[in-house]
Amino acid sequence: MLNITFDSESYYLDETPFFFYSGEIPYFRVPRRDWRFRLQKLKDAGANCVSTYIPWGFHEPQEGNISFEPDSQKDLDGFLQLCGEIGLFVVCRPGPHCYSELRFEGLPDWLSQDYPQIRAADFNGKPFRSSSISYLHPIFLKKAKKWYDAVLPILQKHTLSNGGTVAFIQLDNELGGTHEWIWGGYDYNPETIGLHEENGRYSRFLKSLYTDIGELNRHYGTDFADFSHVEYGKTNNPTTLYEARRYEDYLHFTFEMEAEYMETLAQWCGAYIDDCIFIHNSGTGVMNPHFLETARRLDKNFILGSDHYYNLGSHWPQNNPTPQFVSQCFLSMEMLRMMGFPPSIFEFPAGSIGSWPPITAKDMKCSAMSHLAFGMKGLNYYIFSGGPNPENMGSTVTEYDYSAPVGSKNQIRPHYAAVEAVGRYLAENRDLALSKRATDLKIAIDLEHVRSDYYKKNIGFGLGHKDLYQFLHLGLLCTTFCGSYSPELLSVHDTDTFSDLSVPLIVPSAAVMARSVQESLVAFLKKGGKLLILPMLPELDESLSPCTILRDYLGGGETRPISYDLPLLELIGFGPAVNSQGKLYETDLLPDGAERLGFDRITGKLTAWEKETENSGKAIWLGFHWNYCEEGQTRMLEFVLSRLGYDGYKAVECDNPNLWAVLRTTDSRAVVFVMNLFTEDMCGTVSLDLPKARESKAVTVPAMSVLTVEFPL
Amino acid sequence: MLNITFDSESYYLDETPFFFYSGEIPYFRVPRRDWRFRLQKLKDAGANCVSTYIPWGFHEPQEGNISFEPDSQKDLDGFLQLCGEIGLFVVCRPGPHCYSELRFEGLPDWLSQDYPQIRAADFNGKPFRSSSISYLHPIFLKKAKKWYDAVLPILQKHTLSNGGTVAFIQLDNELGGTHEWIWGGYDYNPETIGLHEENGRYSRFLKSLYTDIGELNRHYGTDFADFSHVEYGKTNNPTTLYEARRYEDYLHFTFEMEAEYMETLAQWCGAYIDDCIFIHNSGTGVMNPHFLETARRLDKNFILGSDHYYNLGSHWPQNNPTPQFVSQCFLSMEMLRMMGFPPSIFEFPAGSIGSWPPITAKDMKCSAMSHLAFGMKGLNYYIFSGGPNPENMGSTVTEYDYSAPVGSKNQIRPHYAAVEAVGRYLAENRDLALSKRATDLKIAIDLEHVRSDYYKKNIGFGLGHKDLYQFLHLGLLCTTFCGSYSPELLSVHDTDTFSDLSVPLIVPSAAVMARSVQESLVAFLKKGGKLLILPMLPELDESLSPCTILRDYLGGGETRPISYDLPLLELIGFGPAVNSQGKLYETDLLPDGAERLGFDRITGKLTAWEKETENSGKAIWLGFHWNYCEEGQTRMLEFVLSRLGYDGYKAVECDNPNLWAVLRTTDSRAVVFVMNLFTEDMCGTVSLDLPKARESKAVTVPAMSVLTVEFPL
Repeated sequence: MLNITFDSESYYLDETPFFFYSGEIPYFRVPRRDWRFRLQKLKDAGANCVSTYIPWGFHEPQEGNISFEPDSQKDLDGFLQLCGEIGLFVVCRPGPHCYSELRFEGLPDWLSQDYPQIRAADFNGKPFRSSSISYLHPIFLKKAKKWYDAVLPILQKHTLSNGGTVAFIQLDNELGGTHEWIWGGYDYNPETIGLHEENGRYSRFLKSLYTDIGELNRHYGTDFADFSHVEYGKTNNPTTLYEARRYEDYLHFTFEMEAEYMETLAQWCGAYIDDCIFIHNSGTGVMNPHFLETARRLDKNFILGSDHYYNLGSHWPQNNPTPQFVSQCFLSMEMLRMMGFPPSIFEFPAGSIGSWPPITAKDMKCSAMSHLAFGMKGLNYYIFSGGPNPENMGSTVTEYDYSAPVGSKNQIRPHYAAVEAVGRYLAENRDLALSKRATDLKIAIDLEHVRSDYYKKNIGFGLGHKDLYQFLHLGLLCTTFCGSYSPELLSVHDTDTFSDLSVPLIVPSAAVMARSVQESLVAFLKKGGKLLILPMLPELDESLSPCTILRDYLGGGETRPISYDLPLLELIGFGPAVNSQGKLYETDLLPDGAERLGFDRITGKLTAWEKETENSGKAIWLGFHWNYCEEGQTRMLEFVLSRLGYDGYKAVECDNPNLWAVLRTTDSRAVVFVMNLFTEDMCGTVSLDLPKARESKAVTVPAMSVLTVEFPL
Repeated sequence: MLNITFDSESYYLDETPFFFYSGEIPYFRVPRRDWRFRLQKLKDAGANCVSTYIPWGFHEPQEGNISFEPDSQKDLDGFLQLCGEIGLFVVCRPGPHCYSELRFEGLPDWLSQDYPQIRAADFNGKPFRSSSISYLHPIFLKKAKKWYDAVLPILQKHTLSNGGTVAFIQLDNELGGTHEWIWGGYDYNPETIGLHEENGRYSRFLKSLYTDIGELNRHYGTDFADFSHVEYGKTNNPTTLYEARRYEDYLHFTFEMEAEYMETLAQWCGAYIDDCIFIHNSGTGVMNPHFLETARRLDKNFILGSDHYYNLGSHWPQNNPTPQFVSQCFLSMEMLRMMGFPPSIFEFPAGSIGSWPPITAKDMKCSAMSHLAFGMKGLNYYIFSGGPNPENMGSTVTEYDYSAPVGSKNQIRPHYAAVEAVGRYLAENRDLALSKRATDLKIAIDLEHVRSDYYKKNIGFGLGHKDLYQFLHLGLLCTTFCGSYSPELLSVHDTDTFSDLSVPLIVPSAAVMARSVQESLVAFLKKGGKLLILPMLPELDESLSPCTILRDYLGGGETRPISYDLPLLELIGFGPAVNSQGKLYETDLLPDGAERLGFDRITGKLTAWEKETENSGKAIWLGFHWNYCEEGQTRMLEFVLSRLGYDGYKAVECDNPNLWAVLRTTDSRAVVFVMNLFTEDMCGTVSLDLPKARESKAVTVPAMSVLTVEFPL
């Protein structure tokens, strides 16, 4: 029996590392007579896996009337049998939600029509649209369990232990999307959260958080008599700390509910199947940390991946993968790795809802190879091939062709060659599945901040967590990539993060930093660590209570945005800094024993300082709102890091900032991926500085492509 | 003496049509010793003009101490002399505002520091930042006039009538930008608007608008005793019709003030110069109609152009010119033409504030040629070459190199070849300056709507004018371009628009349509005109008072958005329509004698009808919120137009929707511009159907480029 396992580095088939290379073929759209042809084309392109939604609404059009009729379009069993014959592993995505541009997100019509009380609702009690369901509503769960009980036996027949190829089950789809994207908020369905019930979910959550109602009241500025009396906040835009705490708690409560829902689905599966890996696709990379609680509950048998779309219509900000997009993808994949998962893109665009603007084969291949460079270990093309929607089930088109690599009339599109080319590369470079990406810089982040982008922006600190996310991917990350640095992302909650004293640690910070993290940073400095913190020094802990442990240790004053428009940073010993976005942070107080390092050239205000701490530790605070716009910023980063003792060693370097070079090594060879994400061919020189390889190579990288350059070791 | 004239078709030099081809060389940044070299390089590249800001703050660092010292960097006279020697016309841009990433937008430091009362202020009386000036503030005008009186005599020496080459004077810069972009609002400086003064500007404006205070009160839902008692509205987000009217009036008042300011500057110039053409650059295409009042006041001696940037930093939505961007540029240029101006891009990006993301030569050339295809008659590269900012005058960098075609060290960058190539094309194709773009479809728009994008979105009609603008450029225009139609934009206020009964008229409409326009449409239908109106039928006139003249004539009911998510349009006789954005409008009432044409497939609600009117006139209302996403939409447009008797003739056609083909003809030849604004080479067949040329040609258009195909006539 085959056995698939995984860790944060790779997927393994019977302990041999492999790339998960998959394509979506919705069997319910592809005419039955074409199943074999499409699956074979996928296999021929180098894929080892096929993925499909299994839409509840398609199989149970009337309540209680569930059908998987053999020899029909509903013959899931036959489809899975065929997948096994052709030799493709299968990802089954039985919902309950599928999205997939299906009416009611793939849910049965009757579900929300006959049971309107199961709809999610906003904080005013107004129900969301019909297909935005309150995940844990008892009626929904009861109906969904019946669906799972009907579909699971079919999947069970085809698991690896039963000699089949169903290896992965996706629980629901892009969780939270149907609440957040369509309605811009969380679910407050009173029955689900058990509002004002002593044993209700919300009361229990708050009780576990605060134990004592007085403690809650102190945090909320309220005087509730009991946990069951607590009202949730009625705003999405908190403007006071009290409101922000209430909103933040509800956010965490939402994540807990989502985790409970996912665990419930997994348990239903567990009654039938014990050898499948559960997966889920976060709707975008920035949502990955929404699943921290889910990952904790599902523990070792779960992989979170992400969906990485760059164009789903002319209203999207770009038509092709830009460096800014790829920087976000890097961040997404690093977060997945930090969470313990082999970085996987469970929906990797291979088409779009409409045919315009086109997803070109070139863009698609370039995006795939860029992902590979930055550590992607799994990919599922969405979609590989489609066809007509089941009658009245499509929400956009009748023919769900999706401009996919294999069209709905079996036509082969140019994308197919791209799928093949990437497949060939993966097949010929299997060793890269366990390759290491060379890194030379450490950036420590708090996943909690990434997921809290909807709050804390309006409470007066001038920098929200959403800003910090932009600061990270458009600022620091683009600077490092353009400057040929290879950053590694670490978690501020991981003690290992603070064990290496040889390299400066870069910590982006807004006003909020968990108490334990502030303590870790102080301990790190005391041991002799080198810290670059920017652009603010924290002043609140994770519960938004005053907490200045780090600042107290360093001795600086409050940091605040300079209200003047377009301030100009001058770094002492370096010169003027460039920032097209022009934002600086100032402080009134230079810490005892610290040196001025930067000031605003317009007002003269203090905007950066450096301070030596115990045991040769050193900290630099830099009040610079980073937004990469030119090479001077790379030199500035180098200057600042050199003041923290950094030697500037780079294993790989490219002298053209428009070409991003990424080095991956195995025991026997080094592969440099050189990305050109612009419309014009670019030239540069790639230099390798490894003990076994010190070489330079001139390269010309065609527009919108990734060149790989190999060096034996 | 040379004489430059213009009309909406072209620029003319002594009556010979020519392309205005210019580059910005800020003499105050380019070292004096390099002036000649840079100017010559510009001339060598095929330019006939040079443009430069003349920063007030640079020449008058202390109040009253104005210097144009010969043989120094301030020697404007010497620079203009040199321009004449080299044979370049000159655009002088003496401000008062320059922007240009200069501190205080190029204004003197002392101005706003010593006279804080001249700063613009928001509706709460809070002053804007130091360099956001209230244009008509008497102190500002007094100081600015002194500046003009100092600089104008120098320009006067070099006018065409004096044997020089100064042919254009730009009055101020991107008017309104420093108020709207930085502060998101208009200027309410009480002294400027003369608040509560009987003879104040605001009182006079309102009086001219309403004559009788009772009339104003009826519109505002107020009971002011007198015009001088009127308070402006204190919101940017009107939610009632009363608030919206007050806000709209203030918007128009703002445009009137801007026009008065521009006229004032022009009059100051007039004291010295009578043979220069005044120009102005609207900050973006969507702002062009802000200058309707200005154009009216400056009449025949004024050209409005626009700035068309596609990337000024990594936070911009795209790095290269996309079809969506080019569609907006088309719209911008059509508006300029409709306003009577030769479509000119007075800031055409040839670099960026930082060097990353790069403006590539390929992108730049492709953008220029796309503009040319769509009727551009003038272009000024911003910037052609720069250098160090005068000390303490830069707001972003010290070296204002801008990654320009000629670098600040005289280095020649790849963009230079692009400037040369476009210059060569213009020189070799001078006849195209008077060529006609073939058109086959007519879309009538109201410029008033384009400029009113900040209001009317929240007053309950489900479609704001900003939405309508997106509807136009991402919906209708992209559909026509991808479908090889060549639309012509017309003004609904121009009676000629309604004279041609042979072609259907397409009128995008939200809830508001001027009374006179509704009357024109009724008259058009009565004469036998064919009208496609979408997605709403108007119900308010230009003062937001109920007005259903058109609906009363047609007999239909109210049109409202369908509140259901993702409705699906079914057109009777055509089939399902595709819209990735999924929004439809419904009506309860089918007009007498009308036929159902479309319905929502989910709810069955009526979403389109057609009705024959007198004299074989016909109207179709189509409640479809257009957002182009696939070829089916082209076919839908064709279907709807064919029901209005349209024969579908296209002078030029390309069978690949990703290649946009534009035909320009002269007496002797036809030139087809085929644009590929994607990252991949595209193939297609271009077919010409002209009486003298019926030909097809297979083309391959490289990624991000414009191919020209010629046919003799």
